[in-house]
Amino acid sequence: MKYNFDLEPLFNGLKELSVKSVGLVLPEGLKIYADYISDELKKQGYEVIISGNFNYGACDVPDFDFDDVCDCLVNFGHAPLPVESNIPMIFVEVDLVFPYMDLLKNNISSLKKEGKTVGLVSTVNYVKELPKVKEYLESEGFEVFIGKGNNRVACAGQVLGCDFSSASSISDKVDFFIFVGEGRFHPLGVAISTEKKVFAFDCDGIYSLNDYKDKILKERFGAIFRAKDSKKFGLIVSAKKGQKRMALTKKLKKKIEDSGFIADIILMDEVTPDKLYGFDYDSFVVCACPRIGIDDAKRYKKPLLTPKELEIVLDGKEDYVMDEIDQGDF
Amino acid sequence: MKYNFDLEPLFNGLKELSVKSVGLVLPEGLKIYADYISDELKKQGYEVIISGNFNYGACDVPDFDFDDVCDCLVNFGHAPLPVESNIPMIFVEVDLVFPYMDLLKNNISSLKKEGKTVGLVSTVNYVKELPKVKEYLESEGFEVFIGKGNNRVACAGQVLGCDFSSASSISDKVDFFIFVGEGRFHPLGVAISTEKKVFAFDCDGIYSLNDYKDKILKERFGAIFRAKDSKKFGLIVSAKKGQKRMALTKKLKKKIEDSGFIADIILMDEVTPDKLYGFDYDSFVVCACPRIGIDDAKRYKKPLLTPKELEIVLDGKEDYVMDEIDQGDF
Repeated sequence: MKYNFDLEPLFNGLKELSVKSVGLVLPEGLKIYADYISDELKKQGYEVIISGNFNYGACDVPDFDFDDVCDCLVNFGHAPLPVESNIPMIFVEVDLVFPYMDLLKNNISSLKKEGKTVGLVSTVNYVKELPKVKEYLESEGFEVFIGKGNNRVACAGQVLGCDFSSASSISDKVDFFIFVGEGRFHPLGVAISTEKKVFAFDCDGIYSLNDYKDKILKERFGAIFRAKDSKKFGLIVSAKKGQKRMALTKKLKKKIEDSGFIADIILMDEVTPDKLYGFDYDSFVVCACPRIGIDDAKRYKKPLLTPKELEIVLDGKEDYVMDEIDQGDF
Repeated sequence: MKYNFDLEPLFNGLKELSVKSVGLVLPEGLKIYADYISDELKKQGYEVIISGNFNYGACDVPDFDFDDVCDCLVNFGHAPLPVESNIPMIFVEVDLVFPYMDLLKNNISSLKKEGKTVGLVSTVNYVKELPKVKEYLESEGFEVFIGKGNNRVACAGQVLGCDFSSASSISDKVDFFIFVGEGRFHPLGVAISTEKKVFAFDCDGIYSLNDYKDKILKERFGAIFRAKDSKKFGLIVSAKKGQKRMALTKKLKKKIEDSGFIADIILMDEVTPDKLYGFDYDSFVVCACPRIGIDDAKRYKKPLLTPKELEIVLDGKEDYVMDEIDQGDF
């Protein structure tokens, strides 16, 4: 057992709901503990059904699969979003310790060359580490800002793969950002959406997102260029509740048709390359999770655009804008 | 355009329903016509949303994804099952011509050595060819039977990947079966469930399913043998309405627990190997579509059993029984 679960808050939450059966939803990295968590819940007298699907976040609510067989859903490792569910949902925090604190300290002198004011951003699993990082950076003479995002973001400083508002809100006050967490997509999004320098960590040390951002933007403009000859567009919308941006999709459909091209709306659960092979469209626009078009584009044969990239194709806009999910998209 | 669609019956059906928007559900081989069918529907004034998911049959009803954005579902290439939907469903027949009639005629003398009474089985897309095949075989002196299946089977002679009742119902009357259609799984199921010789066709000619059946049964007993040391079982149940065999799954869970082992129920939409990698179970039992455990078993690291195979593991039964879906399973 690598991770120590504190299940007491969950047990208390379930007692308050007076439920008998629990649908257990885990991100991929925690599935290895599914049988352990299930066992602990069964000891407390609950029936448990585990979700075997991939779970991509609080946007991904499998209530329609579970509401006839469970009284509630329990989601580990994500923070709530303004997404409704047919049955109650309990979110269980999984707090991880920022594993790169020593690397931060070892590289503090090079960071000092980047400026005096710094913004901190993080993902939900590391957001509790921000005060500790802030305190350390202040002790080194930095002025530190942690931004408040919009209503889709639960914690100060937290960014989602589809929401960088906590970074944008403080962007004009800071010389650069530090990303407290793991993975490249979130700091990339901060770098693109704020146009500020962003630093993140890996096993080797600290790195600026600039090079990766340049590489990704080249890839994106490559896809945009390839899509320019398209006559038939497939607009992919997700069946996942928190990604089902139907209003946005219909708006884009009209925009494509007004430009003299053909557009069809394609609704699917998980978006994967093999589901698109059969279709005869020239390009696809992903109105689901904004990560898909950027993170996974190389796995697809046809150009895969974000809604913002479609605007570049159709209107010839030149500025690259990161796709973020807005409540008005639904 | 390889296939000629007669869309008039669909247009009439939609007019009767007085709907405005249509959710279009196509099996993989027809997705290439999605934009054509969508265009024809749009010309009639309908809004169209195409399902991008794989569709595995009439058991696979995506009404929860579509009922907030479409007035009805249109499913191409499958026959209705007793599965309820939140919004009306129209099934559009896709009739294919049995492509091996010449092969049948060329091999008639070798078939005559197999017996005088023959049962005909088919899949829904070829079932309209059965009278023609029957007439030909009768002209060659055979006595021909076409069985009526149970209430899950729409047409006489039709078999599903999860229902071979139209074959079993005439099994004691026939010397052998001829499968009028394409693919190996359906005739394999007939061969295992009836224990009669079954003949099917491929580009090279006519072949008996016996060798393939022996190969598959060896594989299945291999999986059963590997599963015998399992202490923790994951019981996979499908979120697809016509595969959500929850009553069966709960019964098997109790049976495993009564045998002194651990069992957890895992609910997922499509069952794929990557969704199971993260879990720490010794064996999985697939209470979803019966084909998964048999057709796809080699793609999985852990043993994947059908409900009937689990009984062999737990009870030491020796006879192999094909998994079929029963209305009592739900």
